Amino acid sequence: MWMAELARRSGLSVATIKFYLREGLLDSGERAGATRSRYDESHLRRLRLIQALTDVGGLRLEAVRQVLAGIADASSPHDAIGAAHTRLAPPGDDHSPPSQAALDRVDSLLRRHGWELAPGHPQASVLASSLDALDGLGHRLSDEMLDAYASALGPVAELEVASVQRADLEATIESAVIGTVLQEPILLAIRRIAQENVSRDAG
Amino acid sequence: MWMAELARRSGLSVATIKFYLREGLLDSGERAGATRSRYDESHLRRLRLIQALTDVGGLRLEAVRQVLAGIADASSPHDAIGAAHTRLAPPGDDHSPPSQAALDRVDSLLRRHGWELAPGHPQASVLASSLDALDGLGHRLSDEMLDAYASALGPVAELEVASVQRADLEATIESAVIGTVLQEPILLAIRRIAQENVSRDAG
Repeated sequence: MWMAELARRSGLSVATIKFYLREGLLDSGERAGATRSRYDESHLRRLRLIQALTDVGGLRLEAVRQVLAGIADASSPHDAIGAAHTRLAPPGDDHSPPSQAALDRVDSLLRRHGWELAPGHPQASVLASSLDALDGLGHRLSDEMLDAYASALGPVAELEVASVQRADLEATIESAVIGTVLQEPILLAIRRIAQENVSRDAG
Repeated sequence: MWMAELARRSGLSVATIKFYLREGLLDSGERAGATRSRYDESHLRRLRLIQALTDVGGLRLEAVRQVLAGIADASSPHDAIGAAHTRLAPPGDDHSPPSQAALDRVDSLLRRHGWELAPGHPQASVLASSLDALDGLGHRLSDEMLDAYASALGPVAELEVASVQRADLEATIESAVIGTVLQEPILLAIRRIAQENVSRDAG
């Protein structure tokens, strides 16, 4: 397809698409003359991914660039999920380094649920910092609550990973990244709805 | 306690505390002479809440002001949770208005789980917009997945609401708001950890 059709089908302006081309976020099309290039479905899919990461995921351009680099380097969906998690801004940025006690609590949690993380993995430190912050407010989160989160989210993660689309490796990876980033607002919205309903019943 | 002790115990500078006083986020202390005021535990607790909302919750000052106003007006923890959800920036800001089809899907979800939301509630629209965004990417989220989220988070919400501290109404309300906002990064971190572990096993 020509640039005009790419713009129409992606809902983006030609100027925006040219900006992504210049920034290297979108691969060049196939040259078809001095001033024209042809684009295909992979370009369209990439534009939709960029748009989703910026609009719904709220990522800045630099973070999008890093996620796309992670996708390019990944050799499996598991790699891509890891790369996306590592490069994406962790939920709740700018934490001070976590305490050893909190890191130990995270380790125990992982062991209780049979999970593993590479040493120094950013999610472990995000989790530990958040526990420290709650401790500092005198609102220590109990191990019972942590276990409840882990027990609730384990089976959900099975379904999430199983629902990743597997047309080809690139599609699989994009689908895994989309699932990770773009379903978070959905999970949080449902949690808030559940809380309001439970707290209404609790009076 | 005097200002110096309030600063020491809160970990904030005197300048920051005076800024919060000027901005009306913190109530004045009890006058004890021309230039001194006494503060009590309620001031300390309020400072910790402000700090948590800005540092861990990532809220801007204007959003903090709105959450605190919601707490001040609330007559029950349920009211306070509702006020906080309504005034907090929804997860994933700046959505276009959701489609009617997505709003209908949210309604059906609520009905299937015996939940209710006031008409026009912002969480319903956040949820519907996120569903639209995934649809636009060709990654329709199945009702099965939505039901899995709701089924997983319902029992968790029961525990969350039950764990709210209930010393007095103000403490209860602050605890409810902290639980809503500050546990979100924890939930998301555990979800990402679960996904990485499941996807590693799935290969």
